[in-house]
Amino acid sequence: MIQYPSGKKTTKQQIKSPITSRRGMSLEEDINKSNEHYRYFNIAVVHKKPTPVQVVSVDYPARNKAKIVEAYYRQPSTTDYNGVYDGFALDFEAKETRNKTLFPLSALHQHQIDHLRAVTNQKAIAFLIIRFTDLGVTYLIYAKDVLAYIDRNESRSLRLDWIKKHGYQVESTYQIPCDYIPIIKEHYGKE
Amino acid sequence: MIQYPSGKKTTKQQIKSPITSRRGMSLEEDINKSNEHYRYFNIAVVHKKPTPVQVVSVDYPARNKAKIVEAYYRQPSTTDYNGVYDGFALDFEAKETRNKTLFPLSALHQHQIDHLRAVTNQKAIAFLIIRFTDLGVTYLIYAKDVLAYIDRNESRSLRLDWIKKHGYQVESTYQIPCDYIPIIKEHYGKE
Repeated sequence: MIQYPSGKKTTKQQIKSPITSRRGMSLEEDINKSNEHYRYFNIAVVHKKPTPVQVVSVDYPARNKAKIVEAYYRQPSTTDYNGVYDGFALDFEAKETRNKTLFPLSALHQHQIDHLRAVTNQKAIAFLIIRFTDLGVTYLIYAKDVLAYIDRNESRSLRLDWIKKHGYQVESTYQIPCDYIPIIKEHYGKE
Repeated sequence: MIQYPSGKKTTKQQIKSPITSRRGMSLEEDINKSNEHYRYFNIAVVHKKPTPVQVVSVDYPARNKAKIVEAYYRQPSTTDYNGVYDGFALDFEAKETRNKTLFPLSALHQHQIDHLRAVTNQKAIAFLIIRFTDLGVTYLIYAKDVLAYIDRNESRSLRLDWIKKHGYQVESTYQIPCDYIPIIKEHYGKE
């Protein structure tokens, strides 16, 4: 298997079959690993944004060493992921649910909805990645469809059958456990 | 003057003439204020990325209140700013220098150069914003020009006359103290 320069070492014991190896891996880990692959092969450059922290107090136990001793989590004002694919701005939020029949919209924060709307207005390729962990399936749904649904105010959740109709199933391989770029390429690719 | 919903209150005493009001304002503050304006008027959606912090230990002095008591700054792997303008991915780094004749390339970290190269390969609109604080001038220089210069390995700095030739001066108004979007629009606008 390929070892990315910045990747962690994988010992033989850790390599499992494609199915069992996904167990216990969070969607965030899968997306980070996929983004690492995309960056390494110059397919796309996408990073997870750091969690914003308000630093109040810093100690300097040694020269050139800063230890933060008081800080607080701040409310982010954007989604978690953004970057670029073939010149297009990408922007998305990723969510997992253990629900088997629907995705509760309460899992989306207002700032995430507002940000998805703002970047959609600026013509970014904006979307959600939703994983139904107990079903083992992951979908990409474009923000414009979710925002239109929210604006119609029909329900406080996205039903799985609605997601299947309006979204696209994301394939998973060992190298690219959340392979969302082929879906983007199909809709926005220039070939 | 316009008060953006999320903006800080400005008292009358703080309002100064357009020239003196720039004194003591950092480039970062000017860019943040400009981005706020761009977002409010749906001109572009650009955010500064949070500084990445590795959290080691968190206290919970009260229910729903998390206090970080041990954390360290991590090396970022990207530039400080990115976002979207009219569908284009924007990505840039901002630097200030007190030098009056040149910008030392040592002020750019290797990870910033690598990231600018990666997003340029993905056709993002990537650039540097460089302010000569003592001269009171700010320039936008596209990453492709800076990367080509670095690759030619001619010098460890960008001379001001080189920047004037290859870059574009960024205008400053009270509302938009670092008004870089018109330069992008001129080169990438669709009208």
